[in-house]
Amino acid sequence: MTKVFGIIGDPIEQVRSPMVFNTLFRERNIDAVMVPLHVRPNQLVQVLEGLRAIENLGGVIITIPHKTMAASFAFNKSTRVTIANAANALRPCEGGWECDLFDGEGFARGMEVAGHQLDKKSCALVGCGGAGAAIALALLDRGVVRLSLFDTDRKKCEDLAERLRGNHKTEITTSPPRNGDDIVINATPLGMNPDDPLPFDLELLRSDAIVADVIMKPPRTKLLTRAAVLGLLTQEGRHMLDNQIDSIWEFFRLPTPKQ
Amino acid sequence: MTKVFGIIGDPIEQVRSPMVFNTLFRERNIDAVMVPLHVRPNQLVQVLEGLRAIENLGGVIITIPHKTMAASFAFNKSTRVTIANAANALRPCEGGWECDLFDGEGFARGMEVAGHQLDKKSCALVGCGGAGAAIALALLDRGVVRLSLFDTDRKKCEDLAERLRGNHKTEITTSPPRNGDDIVINATPLGMNPDDPLPFDLELLRSDAIVADVIMKPPRTKLLTRAAVLGLLTQEGRHMLDNQIDSIWEFFRLPTPKQ
Repeated sequence: MTKVFGIIGDPIEQVRSPMVFNTLFRERNIDAVMVPLHVRPNQLVQVLEGLRAIENLGGVIITIPHKTMAASFAFNKSTRVTIANAANALRPCEGGWECDLFDGEGFARGMEVAGHQLDKKSCALVGCGGAGAAIALALLDRGVVRLSLFDTDRKKCEDLAERLRGNHKTEITTSPPRNGDDIVINATPLGMNPDDPLPFDLELLRSDAIVADVIMKPPRTKLLTRAAVLGLLTQEGRHMLDNQIDSIWEFFRLPTPKQ
Repeated sequence: MTKVFGIIGDPIEQVRSPMVFNTLFRERNIDAVMVPLHVRPNQLVQVLEGLRAIENLGGVIITIPHKTMAASFAFNKSTRVTIANAANALRPCEGGWECDLFDGEGFARGMEVAGHQLDKKSCALVGCGGAGAAIALALLDRGVVRLSLFDTDRKKCEDLAERLRGNHKTEITTSPPRNGDDIVINATPLGMNPDDPLPFDLELLRSDAIVADVIMKPPRTKLLTRAAVLGLLTQEGRHMLDNQIDSIWEFFRLPTPKQ
């Protein structure tokens, strides 16, 4: 009778979702389990096709580097999936999968919970993959006044800017972080490995800027440690996950917890 | 880092393997989990292809009604899989799956542990599916003097008898249980549902016969309850599973427990 949930990623050992969800399943007395599934990019479709044929599969969380591929594979997409061209949660539906993208909402809520308002702020986002696109969309929805996007893959960056401009009137540039930014966000995978270079230059930021990371492991990346040394405010990656759990819970059609 | 194991069946809610293995994983301090996977017969291949592409999948236990299909799908087979045309455990290997069949060994060991010797006994087996074929093979290996096979699917029964005769010189008939049998075994699914008819007639058995079942849930089937009322010795289905755990553990390449 157990509902099985998975989280798919490559690498996978950094993910915190099984710990978070399995703790909630236990606390809320729900017969369900979330397991980590290590899947290479070229195997994602085969795995999703296989999982879809498991009757007691409740849903799948998608993480790096599969978010864009998952969005193109699922046929029932929310608006934010279509614009961001990325999905981080799939649930079975008649004939296939439907998907949504909760990273942006999770990131934005995490900032607000930490007391960092987004409204009217100038933001710089580095990394235009799935998480980056999701965050960009949420920042625009929250009313930032300016958003700069940057990615070493220039085409990916321009494409995302183009899709966002089609849906928002906010000023969107494709340029690296600059001194005028209030909030600067790393949405690249840089920082997972101790030898990674910093995703952007901290020295040029204003002394009251906030530096946010989406990396879950290590909890405090080199970027955040260096930023703190420079006296900047920091926001760890775990907040993005922690603040989307309720939305994913509901998306997976898990029973509403009693208050 | 967690190794994920599955058990595939239809129905699935009766399986005990996740409870047994997850308890062992916890006791032996192993970062692994076994999850139940409910898969319909026509979806087995799709699911196995999907699971094979998960890097941290450790292996899969196969139960009713998939044992024969699993054997034909896997390409690296043990001798007993080939003869029984059934497999109940798969592990990933280069380019696909290899499989083995531990039900027979588990059943035979379970009987021996309970003090029921098989050597020189006359045995009747009802049900020639995967579990039945596995048990038939183990009984022959243990030196029974006579084995009768019965199945409502006469062709399945004759085919199994043919394959067994090609490998053993023991007398093998295709006929229902009779008064001369020492051990009579139900290897059909009859008994899982309360309304199921008895798989064979208990009245004609000798008063010192042993009646064994392979059904796990309910632990005591109607067959075993009635047999006990008639004063016959009985053997529950769980012994078949309990006595193959060590073999499956080893097959899954899990670390040998410290004594």
